[in-house]
Amino acid sequence: MNIELKENEKIEDLQCNGLKIIQNKKWFCFGMDAVLLTNYCNVKNNSKIVDLGTGTGIIPILLSGKRNYSKAYGVEIQTEVAEMAKRSVELNNLQEKIEILNIDLNEATNHLEPHYFDAVISNPPYKLSNSGIINPTDQKAISRHEIKCSLEDVIRTAATLLKQYGNFYMIHRPERLADIICLLRQYKLEPKQIRFIHSKVGDKPKMIMIRASKHGKPELKFDNPLYIYGDDGKYTDDVYKIYGME
Amino acid sequence: MNIELKENEKIEDLQCNGLKIIQNKKWFCFGMDAVLLTNYCNVKNNSKIVDLGTGTGIIPILLSGKRNYSKAYGVEIQTEVAEMAKRSVELNNLQEKIEILNIDLNEATNHLEPHYFDAVISNPPYKLSNSGIINPTDQKAISRHEIKCSLEDVIRTAATLLKQYGNFYMIHRPERLADIICLLRQYKLEPKQIRFIHSKVGDKPKMIMIRASKHGKPELKFDNPLYIYGDDGKYTDDVYKIYGME
Repeated sequence: MNIELKENEKIEDLQCNGLKIIQNKKWFCFGMDAVLLTNYCNVKNNSKIVDLGTGTGIIPILLSGKRNYSKAYGVEIQTEVAEMAKRSVELNNLQEKIEILNIDLNEATNHLEPHYFDAVISNPPYKLSNSGIINPTDQKAISRHEIKCSLEDVIRTAATLLKQYGNFYMIHRPERLADIICLLRQYKLEPKQIRFIHSKVGDKPKMIMIRASKHGKPELKFDNPLYIYGDDGKYTDDVYKIYGME
Repeated sequence: MNIELKENEKIEDLQCNGLKIIQNKKWFCFGMDAVLLTNYCNVKNNSKIVDLGTGTGIIPILLSGKRNYSKAYGVEIQTEVAEMAKRSVELNNLQEKIEILNIDLNEATNHLEPHYFDAVISNPPYKLSNSGIINPTDQKAISRHEIKCSLEDVIRTAATLLKQYGNFYMIHRPERLADIICLLRQYKLEPKQIRFIHSKVGDKPKMIMIRASKHGKPELKFDNPLYIYGDDGKYTDDVYKIYGME
C-alpha cells in the first residue's frame, strides 16, 4: 500500500512480523516504554481492547504482531497525531483490526461500549501539568504532561470500559505509585501484578508496569525486576527477548 | 547488671556498642527484618519514638546504639514477651531511655500522648489471620499473624501517635503493598520513601521498607534496592554495612 509521508515523517520498521510505523521527528516518538508495555500485555485470543492515548498507534500495531486480539481501538485526542496513526494502520493493512478514534479519552465512553472490553492499555503522559513552562499546544508536551488528561481520567475511563475481571495495563513512573494504587482501588481496579524496570542492577526503579483487574480480589504479585542494561552497558537478554531479537 | 535467664532463654550479642538482647528459643526470635528496619529509621536526635509490637525489644535496643533518640516506648501485647524485653532493657542499662509497655497496641493511645511522637516504627505480623490452623495462644503465631492486631490497627495507631510531619517506618511483605499504601493515605500518612529488599539480583522483592510522613505532601521516592546475597551466596557489602561489620 502506498502511504503518503508528510514533512518530518519517516517509516520505522518494528522488527516484528514486518510491522511498520510512521513517526514524526518533531513530535513525541514512541519509546522503549511502549514496547515494554506492549510485551507486558498478556491479552487473550479474540480480546477486544482499547489503548488510551495511543499516539503513533504503536501499542495496537505492535501488539497485533504478538497477540491474537480481535479488535483494538486507539484513542488519541490530537488530530494530526491520530491522523498519522490512521495512516500507520493502513500501512500495515490493519484497518479491520485497529480503529483510531480522534477523541478526548474523557469522551471515550460515549463512543465505546462501557463494561465491554477485555483489556484497556495505557502509556499515558507521565508528568504533572503543574509546571508553568509547558506550551499546551505543543504535541510533545501533550504526550508527556497531564494537560489533556490526568492519571485519574485514564483510570476512571479504563474502569468504565472494562468488563468484569477485564485487565488494565499501564506503564508509569514509580514516583506516582501511591497515586496509581489508590486511584485503581478507588475505581475498583484491583492491582494484581507489578513489574519494576531498572536501568541496571542496583539502581532505583525508573518505571513500573502494572496490571489491575476490574473487581478482582486483592492479591498483588511482583514480577522479577527488568534490568535494561547489563554491566557491559549493552541491553540485557531480557530486553533483547522483548524486542524479539534473541 | 545481673539478669536472670529463664528456661529456653539465651543472651545474644548485637555486635553494636556492646548491646545485648535476651531471646527465647521457643518463641519468635527477631530476624534480619528487624535489623534492616532499625537501620532504615533515620530518627533525629532527641526524638521521642514508639515501636508497635516490639517483641524482644530489638528495635529500640538496637536503635539506641545507632541513633541518639531521647525516649522510646516499646508496645507489646504478650505478657511474657514484654517481661523478657524489659529484662533486655535492664541488661543494657537502658531503663531511662526505653520503656516497655505490656499493652494492646489498640489501647496505646490511652497510655501514650497522641500527636506527640517524632517517629513510630513497626515490624508487625505479616500474615493474615485467615488460616484455620493457627493456635491463637502460640507466641510465634501472635508475632507472625494478624491475630491481635491488623495492618489497619498498626497504621491507625501510628497515625494517632505521630505529630505533624512525624515519620512512620514499617517493614512488610510486597504482596500487601496496595493495602499498605491505601491504608497509609486513609490515615493521612503520606508514603514518602520505599526500599525493596531482594534475596538476590533478579529475584522479585521479598520485603519492603516504607517511610510515611504524617500530613506530608505526596512525593514518593524510591531507594536503591537492597540485595541480601551476592552471586557467591554470601551477604552483600550493603548487608555487612547494615550489620556494622564492614
